[in-house]
Amino acid sequence: MKICRYVHKQNVEYGLLEGEEITVLASDPFAGIERTKTRRKLSEVKILAPTPPSKVVAVGLNYQEHIDETGSQKPDAPILFLKPSTSIIGPGQPIMYPQGAGRVDYEAELGVVIGKKCRHVPVEQAASVIFGYTCLNDVTERFMQGMDGQWTRAKGFDTFCPLGPHIVTDLDPRGLKVEAYLNGEQKQSATTDLLIFHVDELVSFISGVMTLLPGDVIATGTPSGIGPMNPGDTIEVRIEKIGSLINTVQQETN
Amino acid sequence: MKICRYVHKQNVEYGLLEGEEITVLASDPFAGIERTKTRRKLSEVKILAPTPPSKVVAVGLNYQEHIDETGSQKPDAPILFLKPSTSIIGPGQPIMYPQGAGRVDYEAELGVVIGKKCRHVPVEQAASVIFGYTCLNDVTERFMQGMDGQWTRAKGFDTFCPLGPHIVTDLDPRGLKVEAYLNGEQKQSATTDLLIFHVDELVSFISGVMTLLPGDVIATGTPSGIGPMNPGDTIEVRIEKIGSLINTVQQETN
Repeated sequence: MKICRYVHKQNVEYGLLEGEEITVLASDPFAGIERTKTRRKLSEVKILAPTPPSKVVAVGLNYQEHIDETGSQKPDAPILFLKPSTSIIGPGQPIMYPQGAGRVDYEAELGVVIGKKCRHVPVEQAASVIFGYTCLNDVTERFMQGMDGQWTRAKGFDTFCPLGPHIVTDLDPRGLKVEAYLNGEQKQSATTDLLIFHVDELVSFISGVMTLLPGDVIATGTPSGIGPMNPGDTIEVRIEKIGSLINTVQQETN
Repeated sequence: MKICRYVHKQNVEYGLLEGEEITVLASDPFAGIERTKTRRKLSEVKILAPTPPSKVVAVGLNYQEHIDETGSQKPDAPILFLKPSTSIIGPGQPIMYPQGAGRVDYEAELGVVIGKKCRHVPVEQAASVIFGYTCLNDVTERFMQGMDGQWTRAKGFDTFCPLGPHIVTDLDPRGLKVEAYLNGEQKQSATTDLLIFHVDELVSFISGVMTLLPGDVIATGTPSGIGPMNPGDTIEVRIEKIGSLINTVQQETN
């Protein structure tokens, strides 16, 4: 199933997307998917990020070729960082290029959406707490990332976490092609089989540290091919069997 | 004023604390403090962390003597990291010592509670978005902090952000003594005059990166004197004109 979240006449709703038609859900879908009899056309709503997570737990250096391109060492355990909820935007919303930024990069990633409050989840039970999968762009200011050492500022600007366009449930997260296209040109291409720490290991590891809540998102790391975006550019994160997350870049003027 | 948050007969309420008496507030206090006619005794409620923030933005290496004791360099700009909302506990709740942890440290800090949604706040207007101040313990697993490079895991375990006991409004954040007492013995002592980046600069810098929301917390950094806690220990963060935040440490058994 494809689950979307959107604004219709100033109300935020969740829906089940089939083709161009949305079946409105009775509530947020994490506790259970309950269809109503109301339908919307995709063209009459504004799609939002498919979940408003309490936190986005992201994983660094989780593809070997990306480790190589950044001159880093392969970590012994997943390297975690957090992106604030205020960094999230939906498909079609602009990524704001901060004043004073030097280089703002795209990073295409598979996003895992948590369905149940959980802690200390064994690897073999990870699937039971996963609601579904979506596309995520871990936008990063590359100079600040190096200067600060901690990645929070570089990855935490408002609009630096495009998410969407919808959540796909009942999906095997292995073997999915993850791609980035900048102005239509392919820049990243890998499959999730190349993840160093796989989705079930990440859920287990992260939930061993912190409680995960329904709607929380795990960003599983980016493959090689990262590079800069500039105002006016269009960036697409495309994941096989999920869809395309497309955003443009705009210069911030405050 | 002292603003507290607590459970009374399974309801979460905010209140105005005067001595041992609480005047119940009509709603969360960030939009404005509206007293009701209902009173509670402090002894009949369970005090919680005084705010449930959407995020805790923490600042590393913000006292020179702490930079010296960690062998670090003085940063050119505030070093930011995030503690997840799931790490927050209130006064009296146990800090859980994780299985597999090697050294779990206290870090006494002044916590700044944001009152208004804000972005790009000039230094000279920072006071206008601050609701008040509280005590915060930035509990840290020291070995994982070094191993990971990123501090999220080391500082993000459930229970690793004690907060409270209440928020004091109308307070000048300069010249406040910040102390930690481990089992009654003084371990940290400094004043907020020693902050490298002061409260108003932090609010301005952080809001230049990300939108701050009502109830969000800024952890301003810890002075020198950090050290380990063990199961059975009692740790107190004491800040002049605010109060004492006291927690015990328990071994996690899962």
